[in-house]
Amino acid sequence: MSLFDKFAPQRALQASLAEAGGVAPIATPIDAVQSATSGTIGGRRVILAGTNNYLGLTHDATCRAAAIQAIQSFGTGTTGSRMASGNFAGHRALERALADAFGWPAAIVFSTGYQANLGALSALAGADDFLLVDADSHASIHDACRLSAATTIRFRHNDVENLARRLERLGDDARRTLVVVESLYSTRGDRAPLREIVDVVRRHGAFLLVDEAHSFGVFGARGLGICEELGLLDEVDFIVGTFSKSLGGVGGFCLSRHADLELARMVSRPYIFTASPAPPVIAATHQALRLVLAGHDLRERLQRHAAHVYAEVARLGYQLGTDTPGPVVALVFETREGALGVWQGLMDAGIYTNLMIPPATPSGLSLVRISLSAAHSDDDIAHIVAALAHLAEPQTADGVTAPAI
Amino acid sequence: MSLFDKFAPQRALQASLAEAGGVAPIATPIDAVQSATSGTIGGRRVILAGTNNYLGLTHDATCRAAAIQAIQSFGTGTTGSRMASGNFAGHRALERALADAFGWPAAIVFSTGYQANLGALSALAGADDFLLVDADSHASIHDACRLSAATTIRFRHNDVENLARRLERLGDDARRTLVVVESLYSTRGDRAPLREIVDVVRRHGAFLLVDEAHSFGVFGARGLGICEELGLLDEVDFIVGTFSKSLGGVGGFCLSRHADLELARMVSRPYIFTASPAPPVIAATHQALRLVLAGHDLRERLQRHAAHVYAEVARLGYQLGTDTPGPVVALVFETREGALGVWQGLMDAGIYTNLMIPPATPSGLSLVRISLSAAHSDDDIAHIVAALAHLAEPQTADGVTAPAI
Repeated sequence: MSLFDKFAPQRALQASLAEAGGVAPIATPIDAVQSATSGTIGGRRVILAGTNNYLGLTHDATCRAAAIQAIQSFGTGTTGSRMASGNFAGHRALERALADAFGWPAAIVFSTGYQANLGALSALAGADDFLLVDADSHASIHDACRLSAATTIRFRHNDVENLARRLERLGDDARRTLVVVESLYSTRGDRAPLREIVDVVRRHGAFLLVDEAHSFGVFGARGLGICEELGLLDEVDFIVGTFSKSLGGVGGFCLSRHADLELARMVSRPYIFTASPAPPVIAATHQALRLVLAGHDLRERLQRHAAHVYAEVARLGYQLGTDTPGPVVALVFETREGALGVWQGLMDAGIYTNLMIPPATPSGLSLVRISLSAAHSDDDIAHIVAALAHLAEPQTADGVTAPAI
Repeated sequence: MSLFDKFAPQRALQASLAEAGGVAPIATPIDAVQSATSGTIGGRRVILAGTNNYLGLTHDATCRAAAIQAIQSFGTGTTGSRMASGNFAGHRALERALADAFGWPAAIVFSTGYQANLGALSALAGADDFLLVDADSHASIHDACRLSAATTIRFRHNDVENLARRLERLGDDARRTLVVVESLYSTRGDRAPLREIVDVVRRHGAFLLVDEAHSFGVFGARGLGICEELGLLDEVDFIVGTFSKSLGGVGGFCLSRHADLELARMVSRPYIFTASPAPPVIAATHQALRLVLAGHDLRERLQRHAAHVYAEVARLGYQLGTDTPGPVVALVFETREGALGVWQGLMDAGIYTNLMIPPATPSGLSLVRISLSAAHSDDDIAHIVAALAHLAEPQTADGVTAPAI
């Protein structure tokens, strides 16, 4: 009897991955990174199409310069919580910039996106409150519910009627309920029915938090996300986002049109009991935010790539996680083997993507997740589409099986 | 009725801090940082003696150069989890270096120290297991217990008999129990009775995890912490540590002499569902680790400062959190006002420290926490001691009350 007995399934998975040989499809080692869209894996150069680097800003010259300047001005880290010695000028400036971008009074920056959801939800929903969350929410939302003293209730993924019934049942308690949804779900790339959700939440007097992790910087006239795109910013109470996708850093944020969000700082354990983000990360993120707000060239380029790839992939007969084009292109397969075959085929063609197979995916889905970047060249996109076309054709030679698409 | 009603105490605290004016004693804004031990607060230069920058490595030239080089080679962030696109060469190299330093087979790097405890404890202790933790543990350990599916049991702070009784009561289940202690508790600066704890844990066949957040880099012949100093590295199962104190970065780690720790990677949600640390943070941390392992000059300097300050502070009549000198010098006061008076007096003397008052401290303690750094000059230390001597004298003029020491 040992703590390690329970890891038998993981031991078996590790052994089977080792036996398969080749480049590991999970935790794929990346040995060098030449640009936002080019890396070295298994000794060869590949196109990176499995990151969340939607705007390619990890390698923007001005973001890098800002990070380097911050190291020179403030050092490599803060060695303290925001509540103690880690409340540097740069951290406050980034919070102000985020709040100002929305015209809202309150913004809190967290040390990771995971801790943003943990810290926001666990502080906003206390022992007498309710968290009403989409069942397919990101792990950080489910973990936040576990950490919070609130009562957690789940509603069926994107099912507004189910949400409405649960709010109905809460009666007066709906007014102490925080409804939590994501604007763009990262597994399938599908969107929440935000207009309908806003209507239901408002009708019952509940609060609404929208996680824009995969949409901030990507959608909306100013890049603020899908709530901005839909004209719903006056209707949502809180927006959570991350620095580690379109902004190319690490960290997360919670913003609100309610000034009282500021008070959550004083009770949020994942905010208080952690070192604040490193100065280079804060500076690079702030510069990336400036670029997002300054123009829409990158967003337009990304949308063009997305529209093209969605159309081509559908034409090739692949099943997509959603019909609405976006930076996440999820190819859904009947079997794990089907997904693994296409992931490997793309890798053989010099294209790194994400393999997502049970138990890591909700509802037992097996999929290959291609993520697009404004930094992809038209040639990169053409190469990805050509490789998918090749893999969509039934194959007979070399023991390569046709993917079950 | 609103989600914000519960923040009434925080609203009152915020108002009282605003009314008091002056530099805020909590979340003190730091406007510029000239060195590891010098910053600008409220328009004036102060000695920073309230950080966790125990070796001053945030401003080491080689650590900064490593961070800058990583930005140039790998970009500002990874935009992916270690399980997806964030498994860069630097992250793996740092894990190997940490494991090699201990001569152990397994090391996992986490994105924050908070997530290191969340990720290690929640993965290692599953639904059928037990977490037996010191009652005065850091918030990240208590939050990890909440996140874990294991049954959590607390024992009285540093009370080995109490721990032994609880293990006794667990019977055979002790063998699926993870005992969690800190080697150096950050509030009072006191140490765990590690030899006795090791004996009890071994006798019952349980596992022992020691959090060396405040001792790694500071104690031990090679800087590996208090377990190394006490010759106990063969007796502990897991060591958790942080990058945001002696190493000057952000992040954390869990190491083990059991190779099976590697399997925890595949089930640890705070590891899987978060972006991996930014390249500059990983590179600076790795360089800081090299410096820690390369020599003991910084540690010796820090110990010299600690021995001197502990002796002087005791001579002045202050109550210390512990008799054993270390980088944390906790002055314990009878009242909040006593602590606040000394914190303010030190700030007036140009010395920034940490004020810790209820409800942020265990057992309702009110204290001023001075943290020492190898980067403090002898003059800095003399200035801190002189200011404490001045504040220890009964004062009559200017409405300044004598601190209750």
